[in-house]
Amino acid sequence: MFGSFLKGMLSGERLLVSYLLVGNEKEAWLKAKDICYEQTVEYPEDLVPAGPIREEIVGRIERIVPVDGERCRALISYAVEIASSDILQLLNVAYGNISMKDGIKVESISLPERMLGGFPGPCLGENGMRALLDVPSRPFLCAAIKPLGSSPAELAEQAYQLASGGIDIIKDDHGLMDHSFCPFHERVARCVEAVARANARTQAKTIYVPNITAPSDRLLTVAHRAKELGAGGLLVCVGLIGLDSLRLLASDDSLGLPLIAHPSFLGSYVTSPYNGLSHGTLFGQLMRLLGADMAIFPNFGGRFGFSRGQCAQIAQACRESMGQIRRNLPTPGGGMTADNIKDLREVFGRHFVLLVGGGLHRRNGELAENVRYFVQLISTL
Amino acid sequence: MFGSFLKGMLSGERLLVSYLLVGNEKEAWLKAKDICYEQTVEYPEDLVPAGPIREEIVGRIERIVPVDGERCRALISYAVEIASSDILQLLNVAYGNISMKDGIKVESISLPERMLGGFPGPCLGENGMRALLDVPSRPFLCAAIKPLGSSPAELAEQAYQLASGGIDIIKDDHGLMDHSFCPFHERVARCVEAVARANARTQAKTIYVPNITAPSDRLLTVAHRAKELGAGGLLVCVGLIGLDSLRLLASDDSLGLPLIAHPSFLGSYVTSPYNGLSHGTLFGQLMRLLGADMAIFPNFGGRFGFSRGQCAQIAQACRESMGQIRRNLPTPGGGMTADNIKDLREVFGRHFVLLVGGGLHRRNGELAENVRYFVQLISTL
Repeated sequence: MFGSFLKGMLSGERLLVSYLLVGNEKEAWLKAKDICYEQTVEYPEDLVPAGPIREEIVGRIERIVPVDGERCRALISYAVEIASSDILQLLNVAYGNISMKDGIKVESISLPERMLGGFPGPCLGENGMRALLDVPSRPFLCAAIKPLGSSPAELAEQAYQLASGGIDIIKDDHGLMDHSFCPFHERVARCVEAVARANARTQAKTIYVPNITAPSDRLLTVAHRAKELGAGGLLVCVGLIGLDSLRLLASDDSLGLPLIAHPSFLGSYVTSPYNGLSHGTLFGQLMRLLGADMAIFPNFGGRFGFSRGQCAQIAQACRESMGQIRRNLPTPGGGMTADNIKDLREVFGRHFVLLVGGGLHRRNGELAENVRYFVQLISTL
Repeated sequence: MFGSFLKGMLSGERLLVSYLLVGNEKEAWLKAKDICYEQTVEYPEDLVPAGPIREEIVGRIERIVPVDGERCRALISYAVEIASSDILQLLNVAYGNISMKDGIKVESISLPERMLGGFPGPCLGENGMRALLDVPSRPFLCAAIKPLGSSPAELAEQAYQLASGGIDIIKDDHGLMDHSFCPFHERVARCVEAVARANARTQAKTIYVPNITAPSDRLLTVAHRAKELGAGGLLVCVGLIGLDSLRLLASDDSLGLPLIAHPSFLGSYVTSPYNGLSHGTLFGQLMRLLGADMAIFPNFGGRFGFSRGQCAQIAQACRESMGQIRRNLPTPGGGMTADNIKDLREVFGRHFVLLVGGGLHRRNGELAENVRYFVQLISTL
């Protein structure tokens, strides 16, 4: 009989996925059962041999409860041996094939301690970032150099202004990659020099973080090149390089730089309330597990549609207990102004990075002056 | 002035993205304008300096037409120098940040000839697969060994049965990775041996294609290991390894094996009619550009919700003219039976791989006998 050799080979430890399923309890039960088979044996129920495969390998419905009239929460557990500590296997089990079925959303994933041990987590985390940047307790301030189409010299001059104002983190706009009109190498070298010059004057520890989102065979080379050039951190679009490539960067001990995860191309996983992953799972838990020291996402009240509750969910996932994995910094960005900044305290406390965009450039006065204003503002939080 | 150095540096060549935007013409116009800025300079319109950045770098609305009362089609062009021939930059420009805004869906992407030259395309394509497998004109037949939880010996026995029936392609179920209870190395070695044994008897050219979906730092090693062990092709879950890693495998001339792209974890890009990418763009154009010889997707009429029209769109993208890029094989899978097989001709002609699942195991009789039945059936198409 297929699978009978499995007896005694599985530990009995399970990981738990909470799904939001569209439908009433009865419909949710059917859907949950379908998930148990689809995500593991991918075989019609009646063809699955009795014994260990049916009992241990097929997912197990642990509980189903109604949520809001149109959806139910289904808790399904899977044997840890199916997922190991590899993000590819984990996501494949939790949400591989069923990503193609509407009406199924991953609300949260709970991993047993020994699976957590397989993930690097952030190299620095919040505490490490506070030590590195000499920011003992206030929120951090971050801004991007832009727009795309500017020359390396123009961007470096902007970086100089931002650093002169005492900003903590200057990052490349994520659209800045390696362009004929703005080569990576020249941009990084010039910006590093400009920020060092400003730091020497201000005695601050501002870092410049270039965008190293590069093809898979060049990613590590580009990361190390950025470090050699003096980059203070590395920005990657995780949806473009692939989730596991973030883990790869975080696991490279010879890098040791803070990693900033940008959400470009990841939105389709969260925009639907009936499909994909929850905001907390994707931008909180997964980015943290895989090693992001900062996880960027669009803030509530900005030009993207993330709600206050969704942002709070991300913040929660960045700070909740997660085995040996360090806490990281939620980095809400976009559409932020002096008027809505107080709202942030309630959602993020002082444990976040404020990513200012247009607001910084839109105020009257010099860029450096505007930075000082925002630093002063977040210091009051 | 920022960007004035750009004068004369851009070729004027543009790539074109067709978006479906929710809203009437006036709303679509506003949304399209927002996309032009969001996807390039990521800067409020009034802050963008006049001159080359505004004229060449910012996206350009080429046309907006109403589609169906609730949506409009907007054609937006971008300077090729922004996207280069790198899939990361291309997707970042076409759909990076706006993936987080609902009501925007990529319908198609048109690339100028010189950008196509930067992508590998399939190593074999349809013609190469026909020569390799000695299948001059009928559709191909493919099945997976399963279920997860079976031992390498059990899976090899199943592979032997499938090959004995004269199937063309035997692939690992995509849930089979490298498990303690079914190690990759042992599974591949045993299945290769079993298929070779059957081929020697039948004189057929059946190939066994293991799942090499592995973490990014091991992917190429695992691919080459599979080849050394005698694998006849390589299966990857592109949503898990990252889109660019498919390109990496296809660009490795020392591999030279057919690549099968599995859609696991990619579903959230297509399930919503108001967000993500069209089926043709994701499972057709992108998989082909990046080098998939076969692109698996759930067939219409099966247990997933893909429509006939969406599948036809994929088939179209697999065969339409695309510069030097070879045609590849749409591989509809799931829920297929003898009853609906005739529908396939109208959608796919004879240019596809039929991926049979439960239907193969559900018929009475031996597995090998059932394969013969299906091969005979598709030969009549």
